[in-house]
Amino acid sequence: MFDLFKNDHLNQQHDGAIFNLSGLCAFSTDSYVISPIFFRGGNIGELAVNGSVNDLAMCGAIPKFLSLAFILEEGLRMEEFWEILVSIKNASEAAGVQIVTGDTKVVEKGKGDKIFINTSGIGVIHPQANISFNRVSPGDKIIVSGNIATHGVAILSQRKGLEFETSMESDTAPLNGIVKNLLDTIGTDVHFMRDPTRGGVATVMNELAGQCKLGIDIIQKAIPTLEEVEGACEMLGLDPLYVANEGVFVCVVNATRAEEALQTLRQHPFGKNAAIIGEVTAQHAGQVVLTSKIGGRRVVNYLTGEQLPRIC
Amino acid sequence: MFDLFKNDHLNQQHDGAIFNLSGLCAFSTDSYVISPIFFRGGNIGELAVNGSVNDLAMCGAIPKFLSLAFILEEGLRMEEFWEILVSIKNASEAAGVQIVTGDTKVVEKGKGDKIFINTSGIGVIHPQANISFNRVSPGDKIIVSGNIATHGVAILSQRKGLEFETSMESDTAPLNGIVKNLLDTIGTDVHFMRDPTRGGVATVMNELAGQCKLGIDIIQKAIPTLEEVEGACEMLGLDPLYVANEGVFVCVVNATRAEEALQTLRQHPFGKNAAIIGEVTAQHAGQVVLTSKIGGRRVVNYLTGEQLPRIC
Repeated sequence: MFDLFKNDHLNQQHDGAIFNLSGLCAFSTDSYVISPIFFRGGNIGELAVNGSVNDLAMCGAIPKFLSLAFILEEGLRMEEFWEILVSIKNASEAAGVQIVTGDTKVVEKGKGDKIFINTSGIGVIHPQANISFNRVSPGDKIIVSGNIATHGVAILSQRKGLEFETSMESDTAPLNGIVKNLLDTIGTDVHFMRDPTRGGVATVMNELAGQCKLGIDIIQKAIPTLEEVEGACEMLGLDPLYVANEGVFVCVVNATRAEEALQTLRQHPFGKNAAIIGEVTAQHAGQVVLTSKIGGRRVVNYLTGEQLPRIC
Repeated sequence: MFDLFKNDHLNQQHDGAIFNLSGLCAFSTDSYVISPIFFRGGNIGELAVNGSVNDLAMCGAIPKFLSLAFILEEGLRMEEFWEILVSIKNASEAAGVQIVTGDTKVVEKGKGDKIFINTSGIGVIHPQANISFNRVSPGDKIIVSGNIATHGVAILSQRKGLEFETSMESDTAPLNGIVKNLLDTIGTDVHFMRDPTRGGVATVMNELAGQCKLGIDIIQKAIPTLEEVEGACEMLGLDPLYVANEGVFVCVVNATRAEEALQTLRQHPFGKNAAIIGEVTAQHAGQVVLTSKIGGRRVVNYLTGEQLPRIC
């Protein structure tokens, strides 16, 4: 493993990595327990790298260093582990982050599920970033960077053994590049960002409405969704608004810069389907209200329970 | 959970924590899968905090921030989880570190084992620290900070349902305080530090001998070990040199400062049994040689396999 990931930090083979940092930093952690561990569009290793890269990006940070910790169940096939390791290496290179420290534990058969991965990350805050729910104001526009619900539907349809005409793939991707472009261009007029993983866009919007004590209006027909994902959601009885995403983020920007933000996102391969999906309002504080395709308005609540366990 | 750990970082409820750092930093990660999760002398929560605090301390860092990620198995009792959370809070306060970001995942019954915890940590390198195997030289003295093998024997005897006359307890403890005292006093004459967790003192010494391409001589009778731990090891067929520790570290110091280092360690409650146990030599490069209590000399190899699985 040392050989695969070799760099000056790992080569010290110490209990931790040592490096220079200065200024405002972001620090995040996530454990990945997705099932199945290999899925259309990726595997748990790639997901674990992109997930922590994206958590840092959402803080307005430029991701720099990752830690990597495995909990392996006895009996995991070495070929599978190796394939995951290679994906981790490739994903970290693609995202421009270094894996600098790690840990591996093994548990008995039946005390884990093949492989769980924790990645924690450190990034340096972009000089023009100032991301906080406190900065969200009435009138701000809400933008989603791409088609929603693709990851969740891809995993769930695979779990259920469903095959759709066009095989959907997880959208797992590192968002640090597109976020950097956005911050370079729009700077502090980006007020808030969040990647709607577990719980989807509806959950993130509800959290934001609760935190900033403002209302949120969402226009259903403005939300970009692949036709086959919508179809699969209908078949599976899912609302795409609650389905997990991996390579998509939501941002809240000053209304006067919304069009510019949208164009910036669309210039990036991961943002070509970006769309303005709604806005922040002083009305119905704490609530998310959706205008449906046929023009009706309804409150979008938190989902009770977890719609899709082990989706990330 | 937010209420229990509340601080300015967690209160932002973002995907990551943001703080100022400057200078040389250390970053470490460890997952904890110990079984049983409650044991004499502590529980998995306390262990997870102390473990990452100690990994940072071994790098010569002053631990500052921890992340905290849980993988819970369905069916874990809320009272048990709460007790672990309270231990985590107390241990982080005792060590003077802040828990600034976290994650919780739940897996189905039979896909985990009650609770696994990952902590990752960030620390700032002590201004007088310069810890690296590259700095180890022939003649350097090897010091252990306390009685060895206590943690491993306490866990294993509990697992096997053995009761000894004096009930042994895990020595889990945060080592950042005692390490800071050592670095304040001895500074760059501390060449190397490592806490001998999995694999014990023998494994750490073998790793060091391999890394610095020098020999290591250990004097068996100089190694501090509780009498009941030695007795239990005999009964269980274990060599204390390979048994895991949690609140003990090994340091390699310039010979001219060894006595001063020893006295500094002994002034701290966690170091009162500190002892010089051997030295680095230009002989038998890459090998650890033990002089036994009866005066014989034998090579101490790496242990094949893991003596005590899920000990941390």
